[in-house]
Formats: sequence, structure tokens, C-alpha cells
Amino acid sequence: MEQTKVVLADHEIPRQWYNIQADLPKPMSPPLHPGTGKPVGPDDLAPIFPMNLIEQEVSQERWIDIPGEVLDKYLLWRPSPLCRARNFEKLLDAPVKIYYKNEGTSPAGSHKPNTAIAQAYYNKAFGVKRLSTETGAGQWGSALAMACKMFGLECRVFMVRVSYEQKPYRRMMMNTWGAECIPSPSDRTESGRQVLAEHPDSPGSLGIAISEAVEDAVAGGKDSRYSLGSVLNHVLLHQTIIGLEAQKQFEKIGIYPDVVIGCAGGGSNFAGIALPYVRDKIHGKQVRVVGAEPTSCPTMTRGPFAYDFGDLAKKTPFLAMYTLGHNYVPAPIHAGGLRYHGMAPIVSHLLREGLIEATAYDQIETFEAGVQWARTEGFIPAPETNHAIAAVVAEARRAKEEGKERTILFNFSGHGMVDMAAYDAYLSGKLIPYQLPDEEIARALKAIEGFPKP
Amino acid sequence: MEQTKVVLADHEIPRQWYNIQADLPKPMSPPLHPGTGKPVGPDDLAPIFPMNLIEQEVSQERWIDIPGEVLDKYLLWRPSPLCRARNFEKLLDAPVKIYYKNEGTSPAGSHKPNTAIAQAYYNKAFGVKRLSTETGAGQWGSALAMACKMFGLECRVFMVRVSYEQKPYRRMMMNTWGAECIPSPSDRTESGRQVLAEHPDSPGSLGIAISEAVEDAVAGGKDSRYSLGSVLNHVLLHQTIIGLEAQKQFEKIGIYPDVVIGCAGGGSNFAGIALPYVRDKIHGKQVRVVGAEPTSCPTMTRGPFAYDFGDLAKKTPFLAMYTLGHNYVPAPIHAGGLRYHGMAPIVSHLLREGLIEATAYDQIETFEAGVQWARTEGFIPAPETNHAIAAVVAEARRAKEEGKERTILFNFSGHGMVDMAAYDAYLSGKLIPYQLPDEEIARALKAIEGFPKP
Repeated sequence: MEQTKVVLADHEIPRQWYNIQADLPKPMSPPLHPGTGKPVGPDDLAPIFPMNLIEQEVSQERWIDIPGEVLDKYLLWRPSPLCRARNFEKLLDAPVKIYYKNEGTSPAGSHKPNTAIAQAYYNKAFGVKRLSTETGAGQWGSALAMACKMFGLECRVFMVRVSYEQKPYRRMMMNTWGAECIPSPSDRTESGRQVLAEHPDSPGSLGIAISEAVEDAVAGGKDSRYSLGSVLNHVLLHQTIIGLEAQKQFEKIGIYPDVVIGCAGGGSNFAGIALPYVRDKIHGKQVRVVGAEPTSCPTMTRGPFAYDFGDLAKKTPFLAMYTLGHNYVPAPIHAGGLRYHGMAPIVSHLLREGLIEATAYDQIETFEAGVQWARTEGFIPAPETNHAIAAVVAEARRAKEEGKERTILFNFSGHGMVDMAAYDAYLSGKLIPYQLPDEEIARALKAIEGFPKP
Repeated sequence: MEQTKVVLADHEIPRQWYNIQADLPKPMSPPLHPGTGKPVGPDDLAPIFPMNLIEQEVSQERWIDIPGEVLDKYLLWRPSPLCRARNFEKLLDAPVKIYYKNEGTSPAGSHKPNTAIAQAYYNKAFGVKRLSTETGAGQWGSALAMACKMFGLECRVFMVRVSYEQKPYRRMMMNTWGAECIPSPSDRTESGRQVLAEHPDSPGSLGIAISEAVEDAVAGGKDSRYSLGSVLNHVLLHQTIIGLEAQKQFEKIGIYPDVVIGCAGGGSNFAGIALPYVRDKIHGKQVRVVGAEPTSCPTMTRGPFAYDFGDLAKKTPFLAMYTLGHNYVPAPIHAGGLRYHGMAPIVSHLLREGLIEATAYDQIETFEAGVQWARTEGFIPAPETNHAIAAVVAEARRAKEEGKERTILFNFSGHGMVDMAAYDAYLSGKLIPYQLPDEEIARALKAIEGFPKP
């Protein structure tokens, strides 16, 4: 019998989140007000987010206490196990040790509740009664539905239509947790109606759904606020519990990884596992940190670093990030959570500064990796997670070619039990490869023409 | 922050299963050969099961070593956490402490891999190349699919047709783990063809699917064997890892439960948590052990204790058990895993001897309990598990009425993420209550007329 897992007891859970803004060698380009071109202040964001979360968004404190009520909910499933993938290692037959942080053990089946619970708590504390949000594959919407119910908030979720149709179980999960789930684009908002007028069959995108949710939240006045499941600084902050736990767990067995990998859509699960390691790297530690994205939405690997809007309807501030243009509608791949045109400003900044790397995979090779994983390690990964696994396979292959030993850590961001239709499509040969055509990059550059430069 | 979970490290996992046959005050009535009326011997079972599992089936040893290769696979997710349901306690507002063993953390999402992995291992060790089995809701079929792939066996699953149609994701899971999944009744076996000739629209039942799987296994000769996910002694044996872990976990916090609860279909998850506690009870400990079944398939609460066949086509030996008749086809409720006409002989014997209790709930009240659970504790339970939660609610209510404090332990046998259509039906008011009519009991008695008496 060989050691396979490192578990932490309840009392060992980290009590603080890690804020990388305190350690950045160069400051980030601030979000800009589209009207004035000046950095946005807390008051600009006040109709959208509660002030306690706005404070977190701009905080420069290195460590931020996790409130007791948030910890109590985290403990429903956290600390999540750090597991060694011995069977997958054997299959790959490469000189690598592979560890993964299993975020699929949460009630929603992904890492998303780490921030959903925090956001519901802070909104409740600020007196908010209803949260509106968007969701891609439904991982985020279901997590927020659960968190809102736990803190007694109403929840309204605009779900990207292609996922709403592909993944009915996610909608049912939101309903079971008491939330309302609306396919987007919808006729409930001005933004949705505009898209439908032009494209009645639009599959939707995160960009469109964000516009709808922001509009809906602002329309609700002081009782309602908007909640975002990725991209923003405070969201990434809440996810650092993943990497902080992993570091505690590795300490127990005296190991430090050579490579840290996560899949990257908006950037939150990747940042969650990565940021505590990037901190070490800033302080001189040898560690590579790699984000894996889809070739159909290659924000970091092919997009320009620029100021752009976070949503289609230009309701957000200008964010400095890698972007494919706020009007980009990614192909309807099964990894719905990775279908976002931009990348979190923190993650973008780190890539720009050379502190992390980025790589992209076609969905077919990601499902190939995911099925191999399921058949050796048991757990069926979410389609998003398969991108991280594809990156692990690539690292292992390189290690074998170079004949160099390597310890890999990756974030198993969620399980795929509600995404089985995607596996069915893959196994029956119905998936087709998709590479972004060069014209799309030209279009992206056109979309941001005339915007300020970071 | 309050303690919510008790976790065990890898090295604390129990190394032996517990065999209650060594501790029974009165011996069980043995399985009988339908032709001779005499107890079946190992040779009678040899075409169906490998000899190493037949030895376990009849073993009188109290403790049976868990092979290292089985432990290695268990460690992919085991030991499973013992959790306290503080939020659900608050909702019930009764003088109870509620603990649950979360078996939903396995790759297949239920307790089923505990025996699937053991069975695949022993079959492999015996030289078998292919396993055939049946499945109700698909929990068992998917668990065996995974286990077979891990040990390099082929796997063929006959799935009760109503579940095959209600739960397509389970079929896709089996495919992802490399198994073939066939809706039952099918035209692949003589047993299936007979049912289809009489009832072309038959929703199927576990009894029918067992007949098909046994026939298919026997037809495969020495290379193939049959595998059963519940009912039999060796299956219950493998599940005792659940209760043994729970006892170790409770010891760490100095607690012993007053009531132990599990849902009961064939009896394996219930026995898994219950048997180590029944052992204590036999040795004088004060503890109540309660099995919860559906009112639509009330084997223990309304069926006679009798010799009956385990399957519709009378391919099994006579088993001494509570039964609704081998020809009973339960209503197509959503808790597919509880749609079995009989109850495990060990569990039946314990009920007969007064060592355990039985109770029954309508599916509507079980979903009511399950949704309350999901909205407080997060995890969405499997429809089967909801029966255990309904029993917990009933215990809490009684404790409140009596003004007596009570510590309750129950087996959270699996999560419901692949059963969301059932929640959708419940939330949209489409479920109807179902009580077994008295005529059905008369029919059950007729079905076993002339059979030997235990």
C-alpha cells in the first residue's frame, strides 16, 4: 500500500487568503473608466458590487482574513485532498510524479464555491438581498445558487444558451438550490434583446451573459448586486485557498513541485492554485507555472495585451488583459467555462511579466487525456479540467524526451458528471478540431482600436 | 469555527473487512438448490462466480484481509469523510446531532466501488476476462465499469430500461470507463426475449436484468463470470469498510451513535454502515439500526420472510429473505437502486432476529427531505439516499417530541448529480405518491407458494 493522498484536518485549513497585489514587482495597469479614461474609483463600482468586496478588489494587503462564517461553509468539503496520480503516471511511463488538488469534491463539483460562498457572505453582510450573475458551463451558476441559499439571498443566473441546452442538469441543480436560471441571450434585458434582434439563434457567450447580469443587477437598485465567478481580483483572491492548502499538504510530505498547472478560462481556478507559487517564484524559488487554454479561445497564447471591455455591451470598465476582443463569440466547445474572450487582469499581468507561461490545446486532445485519466484514476474530469490534464501529458512527454525527473502539481478543477454528453460526443467521434483563424485575430485588434493602451 | 469533519489519513484505512456471519447468535437459513431442495455447495455456484468469491460468500471468519491491490484503489478516494450536518440540524431544530458518512466522494459518486473494486480484483486473480452484471439506477453498473477497466477486464452491463431512459448520463459514464451498456429487457438473452414477447413495453426491473446478466455470463464459459452489486454475503462484506471507518472516526472524537440509518434496496450500503454496529449490539451495546426503504417496494416492512428466487427467470438458488415475490416489478420510482423485490439474506436475517428495524417512505417525502438537505448542507443526495435522510428527519422529530437527545449516524450513499431529472420532476410537481396495494402482497404470497420454508 502506497501513500496516495495527503489530507488536512478541519483545524489545519488556512485562515487567510493570499493577495498577490502585495508582492508584484511591477504594479498592474488599473481599470479605466471608459468615459473619462481615468482609473475607476470605488464609487464607480458601487452600483455593481458591495463596498466590502470593492475594498478587497483594490486591497494591497498581503493576507486577508477569511471570515468564520465562510470557513464554516468551506469545511463542508474543504480542505480538499491532495492526491498522487500513480496509475496515470504508470500509463504515461515518464519520469514524473503527478499530484492533483481535487476540487471536484465540493457540493457543486468544482472550485467555484470557494468564491461563491465568500461573495454571498459579503453581499449578505452589506445588506444585499439578491445577486444576479452569468454562467458558462453552469459550474459557476450552480455554485452561486448554493451559496446564496446558504446565506438567505435570492439568486438569478443568466446561462450561456449553448450550455443551457447541452447541460440541462446544471439548470436543474440551480433550481434545486432555489435559484432562477435564464438562458442568455434573453429578452429580460436590453443587452439580451439587442443581440437577439441581430442574431435570433445566438449560442450566447460569457460576454453577452455578463452584460445581461450586470444590467439586471443595476436595475434592482440597492437591494441587488452583480456577482462574477472569475476574472476579478477579489475572485482570484478567494480561490487562493486551493494553492495555500496544497502548499501545506506538500510540506507534510517534504515535496515542492517543479511545475504547477491549471486550465484557464477567466483565470480563477488557475490563479487559485498558481498565485501562492508565483509568490514563491517572485521571491526566488525555481518553479514553472503554466496556464492551459483551448485553441478555440486562445486568449493568452494569441490575443494582444490591451485595454478592453469585460463584456459585449461595454458595461464594464476597461480592463488591462489579454483579449480576443469584447465582441468575440467563441466556438461552442464543451468546455463552456473556458469560453471567455479575456483573461483575468492579474493572470494577464503575470504572463506579461514572464512569471507564468501559457499553452493551448484542441478539445479533442483534451478529451483524449481526460478519458485516459478516468480509466486510470477513476474520477471523470470536467471538460475544462481536461485542458490541464492535456498540459500534464505534454509536460510528462517533455520530461521523458529530456530524461529529466519532474514533480507536477495540477488543479483538478472539477468533475465531469454533469458533462457526460460531451464525453458521449467525443467517444462517438462527433467532436471536430478547431483552431482560431488568423482573421479572428485581425478582428480582435479592430475591436480594441482606439482604446487606451496599458 | 466548529469541527465539521473527521478525516482519516491513508495509513489509517481499515485493513480487514468484517464478516458478521462469525457473530450471529442464530445461523442463517442457507441458500437452497431449487432442484434438490438441499443447500447449494460451492460447485453449484462455480459457473456464476469465481471460487475465491464463493469462499468469501460462505466464510465464517470474522475478519477478512483486504488485498493490497484493493486497498491501493480504495485510497483513490477512501477513507471517506465522516461529517456533521450542523446546518441541517439547525433547520430541524431538534435535540439531535447528525453525522453522515459521505460515500458520494468516490469516482462513481456512490458506495458501489467498495465492492466493484474487490470483485474485479478477485475475478482477475481467478483468471476471468469478462464480467456481466445488471444495474438499476446505474450506480452499480458505472462502478463496475470503472473497476473492470482498472483491472483490465471487459464489462457488460444490463441496465433496467426505465433507468436507462431516465438517466442517460449513467450509460455515458459506463462507456467512458470502457464498458458496454445494454437496456434490459433486451433481445440479447433468452430471459430478455421472453419478457419482451409478453410485455414489449416492460420498464424492466432488477429481477429481469439479473436473469439476463447471469445467462450472459454463463454463456461465456470459463472466461466470463457474473457480478452482483448487492444482496450477497460477500458484497455486504466488502461494504463494511464504511462502518469500520465510521467507528474509527467516531473514536477520535469520543462519540458513539444512538441510531444508525441507511437506505435499503438490495441491502448493501445499509449493511455497509450497519454491520459493524450490529456486531456491537450483539455484544450488548445499546444502539438502534434502521433500514429505510420505499413504500413502492416495501420488502422488509410488508413482505413475508420466505425462500424465493433472486431473479425473475429463477436462475438463482432459493434465498431466505424478505421478498415481494421474484415476479414483482416495482413502480418506476426515481430511486432505481431501491427497486428490488428482495432483501439481502444477511439483512433479512437480522431483521427477523430483531437486531435491526425497518421503515418505509414515499418518494415525495424523500425528495422533500433531500431538497432541504441540499439547501443546507450543499451536497445533492441520490434519490436512494433521500430515503435515509427522510428516516433521519423522522428520528429527529421523534427526539423532539420525546425531548430526548440523540446522536444519529447515516450513510450518505451517493450524490444525485446524475439524477437531476428526478429533482426536476419533484420540483415541478410531477411526482405522485405510491403505496403498494394489498393485492400485491397477496400476489407475492402466491409467487412463493410451494417453495421451501426457512
